[in-house]
Amino acid sequence: MSWVNGVDNSPYGLHNLPYGIFVHGRRSGSVGVRVGDFVLDLAALEERGLLDTSGTMRSETLNAFMALGRSRWEAVRARIVEVLTDEFYQAAVERMLISVDDVTMRLPFAVADYVDFYSSEHHASNVGKIFRPGQPPLTPNWKHLPIGYHGRAGTVVVSGTPVVRPSGQRKAPDEPAPTFGPSTRLDIEAEIGFVVGTPTEIGDRVSVDDARDHVFGVVLLNDWSARDIQAWEYVPLGPFLGKSFATSISAWVVPFAALDAARVQAPVQDPATLDYLRESDRSGIDINMAVSWNGSVVSRPPASTLYWTPAQQLAHMTVNGASLRTGDLFASGTVSGPNRAEAGSFLELSWGGSEPIKLDDGETRTFLLDGDTVVISATAPGPNGTIVGFGEVTGTIGAACP
Amino acid sequence: MSWVNGVDNSPYGLHNLPYGIFVHGRRSGSVGVRVGDFVLDLAALEERGLLDTSGTMRSETLNAFMALGRSRWEAVRARIVEVLTDEFYQAAVERMLISVDDVTMRLPFAVADYVDFYSSEHHASNVGKIFRPGQPPLTPNWKHLPIGYHGRAGTVVVSGTPVVRPSGQRKAPDEPAPTFGPSTRLDIEAEIGFVVGTPTEIGDRVSVDDARDHVFGVVLLNDWSARDIQAWEYVPLGPFLGKSFATSISAWVVPFAALDAARVQAPVQDPATLDYLRESDRSGIDINMAVSWNGSVVSRPPASTLYWTPAQQLAHMTVNGASLRTGDLFASGTVSGPNRAEAGSFLELSWGGSEPIKLDDGETRTFLLDGDTVVISATAPGPNGTIVGFGEVTGTIGAACP
Repeated sequence: MSWVNGVDNSPYGLHNLPYGIFVHGRRSGSVGVRVGDFVLDLAALEERGLLDTSGTMRSETLNAFMALGRSRWEAVRARIVEVLTDEFYQAAVERMLISVDDVTMRLPFAVADYVDFYSSEHHASNVGKIFRPGQPPLTPNWKHLPIGYHGRAGTVVVSGTPVVRPSGQRKAPDEPAPTFGPSTRLDIEAEIGFVVGTPTEIGDRVSVDDARDHVFGVVLLNDWSARDIQAWEYVPLGPFLGKSFATSISAWVVPFAALDAARVQAPVQDPATLDYLRESDRSGIDINMAVSWNGSVVSRPPASTLYWTPAQQLAHMTVNGASLRTGDLFASGTVSGPNRAEAGSFLELSWGGSEPIKLDDGETRTFLLDGDTVVISATAPGPNGTIVGFGEVTGTIGAACP
Repeated sequence: MSWVNGVDNSPYGLHNLPYGIFVHGRRSGSVGVRVGDFVLDLAALEERGLLDTSGTMRSETLNAFMALGRSRWEAVRARIVEVLTDEFYQAAVERMLISVDDVTMRLPFAVADYVDFYSSEHHASNVGKIFRPGQPPLTPNWKHLPIGYHGRAGTVVVSGTPVVRPSGQRKAPDEPAPTFGPSTRLDIEAEIGFVVGTPTEIGDRVSVDDARDHVFGVVLLNDWSARDIQAWEYVPLGPFLGKSFATSISAWVVPFAALDAARVQAPVQDPATLDYLRESDRSGIDINMAVSWNGSVVSRPPASTLYWTPAQQLAHMTVNGASLRTGDLFASGTVSGPNRAEAGSFLELSWGGSEPIKLDDGETRTFLLDGDTVVISATAPGPNGTIVGFGEVTGTIGAACP
């Protein structure tokens, strides 16, 4: 199909075409699209008159492009396929392909508001059993609404950014008073993040059937979590410093439209939801994640098991009239499947720290040690037997500041 | 002192000089400073060579100016005092004064992250007594750390913006299932907001003694709250849609430096806090607020009673290495004094809706009705018997969207 070598069987073939911000040599950032093992410089493509994005490609963020809206996203996507397929363009466009090994990827978009949901029933149940043994694992509201809260947008960082171990207050139930120090229960949360392109006005609602008009694309997200800090602080107003030190996202934003073939039946919802959460064509997304800890794959969380879909999250988030801005990021919450080896946090994998996890090199872990590296990667089924690659979101833990 | 008529006895005298973004006629926004009943056009002042702010005055936000840092804020403030005092400048500068009645004020800064604290012991105790009768009113962590959470930055609006009644899910304890509809317990929260100017890098902490290097100024804030939506959603991850539909702030940002004379002893903290929260010169700010409901003053919340100071909030918010951005907004949480008539929310003033509040016109209220207007105003003591005015934050409730 494509004149680019080896692209047709790549997870970054023409069925995917994720966008990112890359830096090459001494130039400032530009929008690029990943094609196989190359980055196509879309700013160069536009400057040569071969693409029309209203001048949004020479930019340090995807925001201006994302703000153009769905019909323009579709037109640009179709045009990129055209220039990569029609040999008429090959001689000109070939020179705009740069090896992915020669570029540095930046945070792909300026994050407006960041909302984290709690959409995995298995994760919420596990957490309930670990923290509140003997009580019903799910809170009474859990099956009626997608629980969510706002996180810190200013500390969302791109994959590869080092993560400094946070310090803070923590108090075990049997201790008389809190103490201060580096977190001793540093954890991950393997999540899917949804990126808003088309904004809304304050007072508007986004119908549960209109998500595609607003969601530009999807990233992998690791919501690093200090469980000891979180446990002491979170009653009654929710997680704060236990989460706000860093949230890592993958560098490539997979277009929402590239995931049509990955649509699958989402779990049946019982009890039935209120009308504003009822989709006319309910579907989850079959994204298969892998969590690697110092090179050992310790979990394979399946996003298809999420109880609440992105369309429901978006409808809920705006049902009170809250506006959307281009660059809003909302995430699934930790993705955990029904089996232990499908859990998206070390809290669950080690069952509250009580059952250490064995790595391939024979070492064991419960929570993260300094120097540890976590890589979350994912794929989804594409059309005609293809695979959609998400790249990865990775981070290495640095020692706490003194 | 000043050649501007009537300014010396004004709450907007040279001891105050709050900044805002104004629009006059068909021009776009500029930075202005309030002087008595006038706005001084600082963009015009700079363009005539009478002020040097590195070109940050012709702007739709204060952010570029705020990012210059404390020494530049101080130099600009001193220079504004100079041109308003020295008659040498009178003829030139007089023409740059515009009546406040002839301008429209905009949101003064682009909000980066918005964090809301819960710093009033009286408020937290009242809420505990109303919602959890028979239990200890404060959670075990309350006196050890300033509890806070992230709010929605994208729905922070300037004073005067209409507030649409939010709809959402709510469920009374005696109801079998949640229902959907307009909030029936729409409330206010009278707060003080602190605006960050100087940013930090991820991994850095702001010492409890360095708040002045980062806090540019202070606004009044009304964190509109739908109590019925909040009560059903907030366990376990905190408030979300009950708050995210609108947060109003005053149009004028009072410089932190203008509040030196308003520094007062803050409440003694017992138990003693951990070291990172211990100020070498602990002080609160004596800001006296008034809450007016359809013209009747129903409460006078005293910010001097806040248990946690802005310096402690800032030190806590960054102790885990979370970075600050120019435009970050962090708020005190509802300000309530020890007496009922000093409470900063209608939830408290009506004691959970059980004791209606009588307005001057004979009407009674528990929560907000469509068409109601709430005005929060405030003053603080200035130097030499002057008064520092904050202006007001106002909003009128519009009917819920169908």
